[in-house]
Amino acid sequence: MERFFSQRARNIRRSVLRELLKFTQRPEIISFAGGTPDPETFPWEELAEIAAREIRENYAQSLQYSTTEGDTGLREELLKISRADGIEAELDEIVITTASQQGLDLIAKTFLDPRDVVYVELPTYIGAIQAFRAMEAKLVGIPLEDDGMDLDALRKKIAADRARGERAKFIYVIPDFQNPAGVRWSEEKRRELLRIAAEEDLLVVEDAPYRPLRFAGKAMPSLKAMDEHDRVVFLFTLSKILAPGLRIAALIGSEEIVDKIVAMKQAADLCTPALTQALAREFLRRHDLEEHMEKIRTCYREKRNRMIEALERYMPEGVRWTRPEGGLFLWMTLPEGVDTERMFPKALERKVAYVIGAPFFVDGTGQNTMRLSFAIATPEEIEEGIRRLAEVVKEELAALSATAQV
Amino acid sequence: MERFFSQRARNIRRSVLRELLKFTQRPEIISFAGGTPDPETFPWEELAEIAAREIRENYAQSLQYSTTEGDTGLREELLKISRADGIEAELDEIVITTASQQGLDLIAKTFLDPRDVVYVELPTYIGAIQAFRAMEAKLVGIPLEDDGMDLDALRKKIAADRARGERAKFIYVIPDFQNPAGVRWSEEKRRELLRIAAEEDLLVVEDAPYRPLRFAGKAMPSLKAMDEHDRVVFLFTLSKILAPGLRIAALIGSEEIVDKIVAMKQAADLCTPALTQALAREFLRRHDLEEHMEKIRTCYREKRNRMIEALERYMPEGVRWTRPEGGLFLWMTLPEGVDTERMFPKALERKVAYVIGAPFFVDGTGQNTMRLSFAIATPEEIEEGIRRLAEVVKEELAALSATAQV
Repeated sequence: MERFFSQRARNIRRSVLRELLKFTQRPEIISFAGGTPDPETFPWEELAEIAAREIRENYAQSLQYSTTEGDTGLREELLKISRADGIEAELDEIVITTASQQGLDLIAKTFLDPRDVVYVELPTYIGAIQAFRAMEAKLVGIPLEDDGMDLDALRKKIAADRARGERAKFIYVIPDFQNPAGVRWSEEKRRELLRIAAEEDLLVVEDAPYRPLRFAGKAMPSLKAMDEHDRVVFLFTLSKILAPGLRIAALIGSEEIVDKIVAMKQAADLCTPALTQALAREFLRRHDLEEHMEKIRTCYREKRNRMIEALERYMPEGVRWTRPEGGLFLWMTLPEGVDTERMFPKALERKVAYVIGAPFFVDGTGQNTMRLSFAIATPEEIEEGIRRLAEVVKEELAALSATAQV
Repeated sequence: MERFFSQRARNIRRSVLRELLKFTQRPEIISFAGGTPDPETFPWEELAEIAAREIRENYAQSLQYSTTEGDTGLREELLKISRADGIEAELDEIVITTASQQGLDLIAKTFLDPRDVVYVELPTYIGAIQAFRAMEAKLVGIPLEDDGMDLDALRKKIAADRARGERAKFIYVIPDFQNPAGVRWSEEKRRELLRIAAEEDLLVVEDAPYRPLRFAGKAMPSLKAMDEHDRVVFLFTLSKILAPGLRIAALIGSEEIVDKIVAMKQAADLCTPALTQALAREFLRRHDLEEHMEKIRTCYREKRNRMIEALERYMPEGVRWTRPEGGLFLWMTLPEGVDTERMFPKALERKVAYVIGAPFFVDGTGQNTMRLSFAIATPEEIEEGIRRLAEVVKEELAALSATAQV
């Protein structure tokens, strides 16, 4: 069959990570592995009522094809939310996508020819790596620091790539409570990134799924809000603040970019389900999103605090972790020499699971890192799970140290 | 901005056809232009009830992420339907797609490198043209006859392409009540196509959205049902028999192909909405699909008959049309020299609309053709609309003949 596959299909594999996730589904395992939000944050009562009404009273629209651009009422609602967050955009500068993963796919198709360079954070979101690699891009990783990308390193990489005649298209970043690392960029680095993009004539793709989930720290402008030259393509999703099962997100960019993205979307899935668009639209029209999000933030703040406390209590010296002010994830770095993939079966034996860090690194590093989600487990499970994980880590460090002495 | 776009993005345009469709939305226009099913065929009462229950009782699944392969229960239901239609497949040979348009996109990504050859019917489905061109394929058109593709012409094209060293990957066909032409392939041509595919070592992509909508003529096996060597990739959708607003379809193929398609789907949209999958699954579990489809067939049979009768009554000599035994569309061919795109504004003036035929032809021909949908208009509107259209055609023919005499 291989002879029929395209070059990109030969290169692509199912994500290792998603395969590992299958082992974490057993009920006795406390899992910090999932990337999913807590279903208790879904406004299911409201959505059930809206769904029944939208189908009964409006089936000729809600069960029919939608336009490729997306439901006008929903786009208007999303523009209102964006405006409240400092982003001024018009109706022809926004397109509904079948969740942000499709936004990434459409961006990849619209901008990337084989070997085009994309700059990404180390680590970065696995779904972005997959979408960009599917279009045979060359991904160049830039270290992520506590306050965002190492921008000196970015400048140097860009200069080196230019000198070699590489064709770079954009910088992909997740400035707020990144998946996987939970890091938030400082305002200074945000401004500096836009300067670099202007100087080097690059686009910026700002992926902001966790931006509304800020439960600590002060507000910070998005790159798109500071974007004076239409260089930023902004991805916004309802997956973490409403429900991922709707697959509703939006891409905001210049009219010229959105026009191309819409043409690509026609070929990709014609339109996002009219039904789930109607649900999102009516929820946003009839309910107070800010009030709903405040409940979600409270839920995650408590869980995040519980995880940090447990880590401080149980983890041995030499282990570091991020202190996210929002989002669902925390990032843990173990001493050099520890391989979290090799350690994974031992954790499963102790009935605790995490996500190995290496697949989030486009440069093949990150073996001693892991992602911990505090979204799904209860506070009690978080306490117990971190206790178990600390035992595994201690044993691993002891074994390593024994090997080193031999 | 052009400098940032990929080669494929520079080539792609929004579909002319979809832009023209915007003019046909005015309420005073009788439109045969839409490609949508009749909303009165949607089982909205059942779906409203299922939606409310699936969200209330099962929100932790129905509003959460789904797996990339799709809901297991839904896949099982679709396999049952396929088995009843002669297709034997297992759970790892089917993947849910965000409607068939995504199936086409994933097929394009999985099989097509730039300049790879795909054989298609003349005319063929516009969404397939877009999806294959987005991956920079070379589309070679083979004339469609009343009983399917001209297979002698296909053999000759394949031989000529081989001689020139072209790399061909698959033949794309819609054997049942094709969009746009409404034609159904004979059983003989179906068998012959599979022989050609085997001899020439090509895959076959069988797109079957209208297959369940047979309202006349005898049953005919699908290519996939006769496929002994796993050469056929089969696309099946619920858009025309349940509701397009759910965006639920399935791709059936060999395990090896489905595995690659799933990897591509991870990068494309991660998963199809869990909610609309749950709606489809529960409808198929609780309701008699065959009984439901019989109602739809009755609806379209009546409208199709009405359209054929009106065409016979009103159209002038020299105009030909297909007599579909299923589906939503009928294809009309006007005498040489008529340009249906040039004629389109005149039809709008008379308050009747159709779809111009040329965009369905990959070889730049088809100027004298049009697609007429009998799905949306009422029987009375069909009668009146065809009467109006016949007036437009007669005037156009008179004008042409006058020009010819000058």
